[in-house]
Amino acid sequence: MTANAATPGLLRLLISCPDRPGIVAGVSRFLFESGANIVRSDQYSTDPEGGTFFLRMEFALDRTKRDGLAERFGLKVAEPLGMTWRLWDASRPKRISVMVSRYDHCLLDLLWRWRRGQLDAEIAMVISNHPDLRDDADLFDVPYHHVPVDKDRKEEAEARQLELLDGCCDLVVLARYMQVLSPEFLDRVGVPVINIHHSFLPAFAGANPYARAKERGVKLVGATAHYVTEELDAGPIIEQDVMRVSHRDGADALAQLGADVERLVLARAVQAHCEDRVLRHGNTTVVF
Amino acid sequence: MTANAATPGLLRLLISCPDRPGIVAGVSRFLFESGANIVRSDQYSTDPEGGTFFLRMEFALDRTKRDGLAERFGLKVAEPLGMTWRLWDASRPKRISVMVSRYDHCLLDLLWRWRRGQLDAEIAMVISNHPDLRDDADLFDVPYHHVPVDKDRKEEAEARQLELLDGCCDLVVLARYMQVLSPEFLDRVGVPVINIHHSFLPAFAGANPYARAKERGVKLVGATAHYVTEELDAGPIIEQDVMRVSHRDGADALAQLGADVERLVLARAVQAHCEDRVLRHGNTTVVF
Amino acid sequence: MTANAATPGLLRLLISCPDRPGIVAGVSRFLFESGANIVRSDQYSTDPEGGTFFLRMEFALDRTKRDGLAERFGLKVAEPLGMTWRLWDASRPKRISVMVSRYDHCLLDLLWRWRRGQLDAEIAMVISNHPDLRDDADLFDVPYHHVPVDKDRKEEAEARQLELLDGCCDLVVLARYMQVLSPEFLDRVGVPVINIHHSFLPAFAGANPYARAKERGVKLVGATAHYVTEELDAGPIIEQDVMRVSHRDGADALAQLGADVERLVLARAVQAHCEDRVLRHGNTTVVF
Amino acid sequence: MTANAATPGLLRLLISCPDRPGIVAGVSRFLFESGANIVRSDQYSTDPEGGTFFLRMEFALDRTKRDGLAERFGLKVAEPLGMTWRLWDASRPKRISVMVSRYDHCLLDLLWRWRRGQLDAEIAMVISNHPDLRDDADLFDVPYHHVPVDKDRKEEAEARQLELLDGCCDLVVLARYMQVLSPEFLDRVGVPVINIHHSFLPAFAGANPYARAKERGVKLVGATAHYVTEELDAGPIIEQDVMRVSHRDGADALAQLGADVERLVLARAVQAHCEDRVLRHGNTTVVF
Repeated sequence: MTANAATPGLLRLLISCPDRPGIVAGVSRFLFESGANIVRSDQYSTDPEGGTFFLRMEFALDRTKRDGLAERFGLKVAEPLGMTWRLWDASRPKRISVMVSRYDHCLLDLLWRWRRGQLDAEIAMVISNHPDLRDDADLFDVPYHHVPVDKDRKEEAEARQLELLDGCCDLVVLARYMQVLSPEFLDRVGVPVINIHHSFLPAFAGANPYARAKERGVKLVGATAHYVTEELDAGPIIEQDVMRVSHRDGADALAQLGADVERLVLARAVQAHCEDRVLRHGNTTVVF
Repeated sequence: MTANAATPGLLRLLISCPDRPGIVAGVSRFLFESGANIVRSDQYSTDPEGGTFFLRMEFALDRTKRDGLAERFGLKVAEPLGMTWRLWDASRPKRISVMVSRYDHCLLDLLWRWRRGQLDAEIAMVISNHPDLRDDADLFDVPYHHVPVDKDRKEEAEARQLELLDGCCDLVVLARYMQVLSPEFLDRVGVPVINIHHSFLPAFAGANPYARAKERGVKLVGATAHYVTEELDAGPIIEQDVMRVSHRDGADALAQLGADVERLVLARAVQAHCEDRVLRHGNTTVVF
Repeated sequence: MTANAATPGLLRLLISCPDRPGIVAGVSRFLFESGANIVRSDQYSTDPEGGTFFLRMEFALDRTKRDGLAERFGLKVAEPLGMTWRLWDASRPKRISVMVSRYDHCLLDLLWRWRRGQLDAEIAMVISNHPDLRDDADLFDVPYHHVPVDKDRKEEAEARQLELLDGCCDLVVLARYMQVLSPEFLDRVGVPVINIHHSFLPAFAGANPYARAKERGVKLVGATAHYVTEELDAGPIIEQDVMRVSHRDGADALAQLGADVERLVLARAVQAHCEDRVLRHGNTTVVF
Repeated sequence: MTANAATPGLLRLLISCPDRPGIVAGVSRFLFESGANIVRSDQYSTDPEGGTFFLRMEFALDRTKRDGLAERFGLKVAEPLGMTWRLWDASRPKRISVMVSRYDHCLLDLLWRWRRGQLDAEIAMVISNHPDLRDDADLFDVPYHHVPVDKDRKEEAEARQLELLDGCCDLVVLARYMQVLSPEFLDRVGVPVINIHHSFLPAFAGANPYARAKERGVKLVGATAHYVTEELDAGPIIEQDVMRVSHRDGADALAQLGADVERLVLARAVQAHCEDRVLRHGNTTVVF
């Protein structure tokens, strides 16, 4: 767990490539010679022999020395070593659009954390298929777009949502948004989408997880935050947690207790993403 | 952990007395003969031989059969067995006054749970020594009283607070209220006062717990909710929890992470109190 | 969580029946008039209107007053109220037979707790399809029966196991026993069978859960203790817990970390069963 | 949490020094030019401006290329950058001496993990002031030295202990050793000493923590593993954890439940130390 570890004014370099000797040496030498001071570095290799190597470096670099940095890095380091990479200016917070239905807990938690300065992000807008939570968004001066979703005209609603999102955000967060997004939407949205699943996946994937957990006599309820992929509830997991329950807790009580886990897990996942601490690798994640 | 276990329309009977045979039989027979159906019962004895016995019973009883119930119980059961007891109508939610300074997380969590119907209570008012959180209270339509506290004229401020609280609430919750209440205030307020301490008591009692925890290299930060007594930070503990941290988390990050534990622990403690699940016993508690 | 809450010399009464007014009054009056002192009582109702009521009472009763107690209770209380019930003398520890394959951690933990007096039970024997753990059982003076299981002659092995178990135990514990027991075995063994599943059921039911968890990128690994039923991995859950993991932990590391959860969860479940704190209710459990 | 992350045949480099640009570049370039492949790297800085920098690198290097490596590193990299450093061959397990009194749980847990290959160490001997646990050590073929400690002749006992430990171990683990070691012992033993404290330090430092926790009504009990320093119970913390308890748990039950936390926390701390993942920094630790 790391809270708001980001220092303003830093740059972040994210790399994945086939593992081989010399990667850290090559990158750190380049940064040193560019005048950078590495503040934090994390690396992981699935297998030093033939595996995939992941690197995240956070470094300070005077603004006057940043010109052409990305180009030089691409040419001198990334290309020769076959890297997939990106560079992110930590002083530029991620712009988040939150999609929500009627449950308020995940949305409110994100808004509160944002106001407290605990979220390394800007909340650009809220999009909801219901009007219920407009007052909450208003209190935080966040635009609230009500886009009703008619079961038979979902396509139209998604078109409207895409129009709102277009170019306005770096991340979409589904904060208990109760509509399934179409593959077309996911294809066209162009930014990562994080979902909070009200269960400890892959247990109780699908509908009514709390009722089904109750029938099974479980002693813990959980929540899972994951990137959304075309396969429902099966995307790469970012964060999970659980809470103890007992036979005394009915399905409603499980849902209420679960809400505490959901908002915490979603907030942690969003913050990790916004700090560029999450690297995807097939269906899993590396979370530094 | 129990979420909102209360069923509306129930009565709750809380008892403590010297342990001896026949207490459960006496109470349950009285309730049965009065037409009640016991819905939940919890008991605990510090020692079956010469210890103290605690009982909490939740029962359904038609309103037409409630007349004179308390009187009859006192006469027939409580007096002969030397009981300390109280009867509470669960359909009457506890009225809570929240005292707060500038940190918003505990207050917001209580307001939000209350709006969701997850808190077995009414939030009657917010009293603060700062004006900062008025808009938040407004959103939930809760009266907000700004009572500045001048270090040299604390007595006046407390007099004003007592005036506001007088007869209006069943519980005072200190939701990160950063002023120490005087013994006179505690004596005169007449209702229980619950505090959230930003630490895992008795570790780091007193000021700056997160900075001191950091210096000590702790791997967990915690929070403790307790009843306020004259001895600072030493009252009976109601609830505690912790969260894992690491060397990467500075004192500020510890405070931010700690805030998540604080609001959760305080909410659980307040809910337990409002459901009459907490019985005090000297400096400890029995939490059913 | 309750550690070894049992007081020697007590009796335990376990009841389930259709809920209706007067049950607690009837039972507690009977016990009081029999000279008993109720030490602990727990009850739960799935629904006060037409649900099922569960009661566990622990009481002290002089040995001279125990003659005919069960008969009188059956006649006067249990029959009129349609109760399913049993009475257990807490001074008679449950006799446990442990079935195990090659993994030692769950067996060792049970043996160690038993030696420390933390397990309300006697470990009567160990049965294994491998000879590997004989020395461990020897250290604790527990008979070790090696019953090899030939895939094509499982029936013979189970016949031998049943012969060993016959009349010798009140509970069979599968402490990572890697063979599936046949419905015939379960039918004939005549005592409850508790299993530890190396996962957070219903996630990853079946084989290789840690490898599958790794592929899915999970951030927690868990264990589930449950009663064994004919449907593999789907019996009533007694206890569950989890442990945090990260991308750095390979499938082997997950299995090692999981082992710590497994032995803890199994020990808690066995102890709860031995203290008669678990009541089965269809496919769920009530754990007092 | 990381289980047995060590790959055999690796080398580990541990560094601390004043933070400044170029450290990672310098170290990784040296290693690359020496023919090494960095398998894992962790770094941390207390403050990029004027703070202390900590680095742990795990790298593979052919045995034929290791001659003179340490000398060259000292000359070319460590001295110019003012580093405190050490190099450890991961194929050489740490040799551990365990000191214990009568409680068996921590000792047994270490012995089990060691036999399962989960502890990156050799257990060289057990030293006890009581004869009670000899049979347990025998089962694992570990030498058991009974060194009685007479209150008035502690010096003699410590002299005998130091004689046994001399040159035989890289780490001393106090696995619930109930004698306070003298400053002279700590001064002369020449290797780190890890202790498990039966509490969540700094809460309940000193004697009888479980009884004192009970009086205080705590809802969690914990354990703390730390390096031993001259100041009792105040050394740098390596690992901590807690377990939930309730009013039902008496002081004995708390001690039993606490034992489960103690052995887990001690095992994690010892494993982290043996993998060279713990760097001391004043009174705190950096645990990679």
